Amino acid sequence: MFSVILARPENPENIGLAARALANTGFRDLRLAGLRRLSVKAFRTAVHAEEILNKARLFKGLEEAVADLHLVFAATARWRTNFPSMPLAEAVEKMLSFPSSTRIGLLFGNERTGLTSEEMRSSNFRFTIPQAARQPSYNLASAVLLTLFPLFSAARPAGPVPFEKPLARRDQDACLRRIAGILEDREFMHEANRRYVTDMIFDLFGRLAMTEKDRRLLLAVFYKGVTEPKRSFCVLKKR
Amino acid sequence: MFSVILARPENPENIGLAARALANTGFRDLRLAGLRRLSVKAFRTAVHAEEILNKARLFKGLEEAVADLHLVFAATARWRTNFPSMPLAEAVEKMLSFPSSTRIGLLFGNERTGLTSEEMRSSNFRFTIPQAARQPSYNLASAVLLTLFPLFSAARPAGPVPFEKPLARRDQDACLRRIAGILEDREFMHEANRRYVTDMIFDLFGRLAMTEKDRRLLLAVFYKGVTEPKRSFCVLKKR
Repeated sequence: MFSVILARPENPENIGLAARALANTGFRDLRLAGLRRLSVKAFRTAVHAEEILNKARLFKGLEEAVADLHLVFAATARWRTNFPSMPLAEAVEKMLSFPSSTRIGLLFGNERTGLTSEEMRSSNFRFTIPQAARQPSYNLASAVLLTLFPLFSAARPAGPVPFEKPLARRDQDACLRRIAGILEDREFMHEANRRYVTDMIFDLFGRLAMTEKDRRLLLAVFYKGVTEPKRSFCVLKKR
Repeated sequence: MFSVILARPENPENIGLAARALANTGFRDLRLAGLRRLSVKAFRTAVHAEEILNKARLFKGLEEAVADLHLVFAATARWRTNFPSMPLAEAVEKMLSFPSSTRIGLLFGNERTGLTSEEMRSSNFRFTIPQAARQPSYNLASAVLLTLFPLFSAARPAGPVPFEKPLARRDQDACLRRIAGILEDREFMHEANRRYVTDMIFDLFGRLAMTEKDRRLLLAVFYKGVTEPKRSFCVLKKR
């Protein structure tokens, strides 16, 4: 099950075209984060996809928008130091390796700015749609369509899939914040490295596609196992 | 080498978005058939693809627009009785099976009407982009992008390709018109079946991707071999 989340979309025509892309490829769940209300202009480009727009859910923040999903894949055109990304084809393969009942969110940022580092933290994985040159980047609705099309075209493997379903994003988020809290208490994380270390934690443990079992182990490790924070976390230090 | 040909495009924003799709995927040759002049509105959506628009060539008719190409693949959303089509993935595979110096045109019709039967005759092959439901069809620029993306992504086989290069479209056209003329002279083709038989000829012999050798053989067959037109062409008759 796939949902498309647009973070702070600016251009209503793009929202309409994105809705049309969902309809073209048989998907229905559109979520809009950081948007107060949907402009009527969006309906102009949502040819035969008005229902998707009518049912699109508006969320104040991105965290709320992805809270009930299991996994979030964020599209990024720019290379991010703290959030490595994979090519679209690899991301699609990864998405399809999870059981079909996994609720997967496809996250796309604002047309001009892309996703902020803060917004990236709401994702488990990042992907980049290959392009011929640095400029122009793909139009927002085009990026949505290029991502949905191979998911629509791919036949999902019929047999059982070897993965356990991940926790809902809200539970993954809560766990990662707890880990960040522990590291803060133990003074591994502080004013000077907080942003960097937080990004690292969200990237590193996001990629786990954390299950209940993973969470228990992780928290156990952090609560009990981490007695000498500065030494045992040397891998997290900025080189 | 790929060229994108838009036949009678109506919406300048779509032309701009199509130009951007070419830029995204590293293609440059955009041709506009049946368009008198390019509206400045097209430049609004052609973000960082202005050069492609500036260099886009305008042609009065479609035949002139494709005359120097070797092969034309036409996109069609609707099923055409006289012009069978293949799925996009198969078309892409076919395109890539020709030597890389083959000049291949990707033809897209008007937003509302699609390609007319007459326009279809300028193509060798037809393809359809799979979609979830009959409605909505893909937006024009989206169809262009979905077609170019796998061509950009695909690595062309390095070794020699087993195909001979086809004739230029103008020579294929001339040959097919000559065949139509012969059939008309021999009264196989007449007022009542002209449209149907012409479509059939353009579909059937278009799919040959006609080389010089093919043309010689075909014309020889039609000039000399066809002595009893009504009998030997029974396969062409409408059932």
